[in-house]
Amino acid sequence: LVSVLSSAIIVYRLPWTWKCSKLLMKCIHAGLNTVAMILAIVATVAAFDYHNASNIPNMYSLHSWIGLIAIIFYSLQLFLGFAVFLLPFAPVPLRAALMPIHVYSGLTIFATVIATALMGITEKLLFSLQNPSYSASPPEATFVNCLGLLLVIFGALILWMASRPHWKRPPEENAKVLGPIGETPEGTEAESTMTDGSNADKSDLRINSEADRKQNLKLDEAGQRSTM
Amino acid sequence: LVSVLSSAIIVYRLPWTWKCSKLLMKCIHAGLNTVAMILAIVATVAAFDYHNASNIPNMYSLHSWIGLIAIIFYSLQLFLGFAVFLLPFAPVPLRAALMPIHVYSGLTIFATVIATALMGITEKLLFSLQNPSYSASPPEATFVNCLGLLLVIFGALILWMASRPHWKRPPEENAKVLGPIGETPEGTEAESTMTDGSNADKSDLRINSEADRKQNLKLDEAGQRSTM
Repeated sequence: LVSVLSSAIIVYRLPWTWKCSKLLMKCIHAGLNTVAMILAIVATVAAFDYHNASNIPNMYSLHSWIGLIAIIFYSLQLFLGFAVFLLPFAPVPLRAALMPIHVYSGLTIFATVIATALMGITEKLLFSLQNPSYSASPPEATFVNCLGLLLVIFGALILWMASRPHWKRPPEENAKVLGPIGETPEGTEAESTMTDGSNADKSDLRINSEADRKQNLKLDEAGQRSTM
Repeated sequence: LVSVLSSAIIVYRLPWTWKCSKLLMKCIHAGLNTVAMILAIVATVAAFDYHNASNIPNMYSLHSWIGLIAIIFYSLQLFLGFAVFLLPFAPVPLRAALMPIHVYSGLTIFATVIATALMGITEKLLFSLQNPSYSASPPEATFVNCLGLLLVIFGALILWMASRPHWKRPPEENAKVLGPIGETPEGTEAESTMTDGSNADKSDLRINSEADRKQNLKLDEAGQRSTM
């Protein structure tokens, strides 16, 4: 689950995919997230089944509370992402306004899922290791602790990749959209770049086309550029 | 601990502090982080003392592993931050290069500390609640689960505040640093803005001073602007 979720997050960050069409990459992003969602639901149903079969109460632990909330927010995120960014009906200003929220909530859900997994590992080790117990540090405990540690390192790595501006997919048709000095940029890509909640007057922005590729990496935060 | 850590993170994000001097704000940021570090060390020593007094082994759980790693990285972060950003010796390019790493590792350590706290809560509830047990959901369990949930919500809120570009402290002496159209911006603040790992040629950037406040919010990511 975490690995599918991670690939869904960083799919735009792989330079060799930058020549693929934006729509294809969006479909891959949505598809990977759908796979992750299905895995999450299967895992949750399995947990409930196991509890019911073993007469263990459901939903009493902090792990289960936060896990359920993560799944609810994740399905909301998937539904909204599909409706706004994949279907062609949402207007560009709405996409531009929602993109930073989509990016923030996606990464926050990812971090919450990792925290939930760590709580689940802690619970499981305490329940399952009895003789010798968890506190006696049998090899099993050390091994699973290492897995948990790798999960944290892996999550930190994904967050690093997802937050580096120069690993961002460059805008399509850059040259066509951003004209030479003095021209007001028109077009949907540029528009989504500009509507960053700051209402900067487009005519005030004069960007030399020589620098605009690099400049664009900084111009917009959190992926608002690429809402189309 | 988490609350002091949070105030340290968002201290630059409070608009009413933007009129205070940069050095004062840095000292507050460093001071709050030092207080949080002291609290973390006191808490760790208390945990070891309690374990030793109760004949409980130390450092066997995932909570303890990840918590110790978080403390090690946090002290490293504090030491490097002090040496590079507070002491006046580090050159501006070094500050500019390290600032995105400082911001990323600060937020990642913060998220890791919250995950560690959630694991600690899970452990404590499983150990302490015996009759009725955690799985019987006594009021105590529900109450502490709610605290854990609030911790997640609080952490998400802090990450939101820390990642919004328009809640960023505006650059000092903006007008002095960024000249009118056609002038090459010179000066340390502008320099630290530009060296975002993209080596954009400064002379290619022509920013209308009318738009530069808003524009600056987008120009740099992750706080590189304010390295001085």
